[in-house]
Amino acid sequence: MPMVNIKITKTGATAEQKAELIKGATELLQRVLNKNPATTIVIIEEVETDNWGVGGESITVRNAKPKP
Amino acid sequence: MPMVNIKITKTGATAEQKAELIKGATELLQRVLNKNPATTIVIIEEVETDNWGVGGESITVRNAKPKP
Amino acid sequence: MPMVNIKITKTGATAEQKAELIKGATELLQRVLNKNPATTIVIIEEVETDNWGVGGESITVRNAKPKP
Amino acid sequence: MPMVNIKITKTGATAEQKAELIKGATELLQRVLNKNPATTIVIIEEVETDNWGVGGESITVRNAKPKP
Amino acid sequence: MPMVNIKITKTGATAEQKAELIKGATELLQRVLNKNPATTIVIIEEVETDNWGVGGESITVRNAKPKP
Amino acid sequence: MPMVNIKITKTGATAEQKAELIKGATELLQRVLNKNPATTIVIIEEVETDNWGVGGESITVRNAKPKP
Repeated sequence: MPMVNIKITKTGATAEQKAELIKGATELLQRVLNKNPATTIVIIEEVETDNWGVGGESITVRNAKPKP
Repeated sequence: MPMVNIKITKTGATAEQKAELIKGATELLQRVLNKNPATTIVIIEEVETDNWGVGGESITVRNAKPKP
Repeated sequence: MPMVNIKITKTGATAEQKAELIKGATELLQRVLNKNPATTIVIIEEVETDNWGVGGESITVRNAKPKP
Repeated sequence: MPMVNIKITKTGATAEQKAELIKGATELLQRVLNKNPATTIVIIEEVETDNWGVGGESITVRNAKPKP
Repeated sequence: MPMVNIKITKTGATAEQKAELIKGATELLQRVLNKNPATTIVIIEEVETDNWGVGGESITVRNAKPKP
Repeated sequence: MPMVNIKITKTGATAEQKAELIKGATELLQRVLNKNPATTIVIIEEVETDNWGVGGESITVRNAKPKP
């Protein structure tokens, strides 16, 4: 019964894409560690871009910058 | 000062029920490990059913299936 | 299938005490939200006292202070 | 590439304040452990006051009490 | 820069298996959401069987029971 | 009572450095959001380099590569 927690920025992942993440992560644990897929839990957390920082800046600020 | 994190699907837990979870988890840590209830923190996270998977499928999909 | 994560300092909780936490948290979710105990997961994390801080100090440092 | 997760109650932190948390946490890891700020990730989670408990009560309930 | 956290019981996953989990989770995020693999972080946590409970019992206790 | 969780690779942070992280994170929350330092909790998790991946590889593997 592994637990997979996936954190992504909230930028429009669809229900279909989230279903693929759930399916793919469950299969990964089965393939690599032979974990029973019936009891693998996957939780996806979508985080606002104001609330996710990298390089000392929020993703909101980074995305607003002109691309070089 | 233990920390308890409870993740449930977002399916209508009321403020009263959440208050009971907070009270119950705090008492559990006091009873079993003699932790001071004044400093026990409980955080409840409610996760959309699209974002919670088990058995390789989202809870949304599972709940939509006819019961056998 | 709720998920409960309990973080405590690593200060000698026994296997019996941890079993009581697992049992108690599972019953709490069943009693309050009618969650099926068979699929409730409880994970206990024990954190070294050097790695847990409160009030700006580690628990190691706090415990070393003379009690007033 | 450290990961910092900050959980606060959802009580009106502004985008500017969240940007300061991201900047400050990134600098802290650089100053203390010489971690490359370019790859430090900071995630801020804002939790409803009904969902955050301390002392066995939700923050909602605590805030509603008259101050002594 | 997604973050994937995988929690499994500490029951002998090898460095090679953990490397496969890291590779597989990174590819999954790239395939489904087109996330840049260079900045995807995967953290694997291995939890003692005394500290992981399901169905109200620790994995240690469950594994000690005779199989039907 | 904010909660700060810092995840770093287990590569020799000293008790003094961890104390500085605890102090710094607590001050950050006080300075930016006026949070009472007495109730801010900081938890540091040190993760084995086999268990931390970035760019699809574990830190163990990355560190073993010759620097360009």
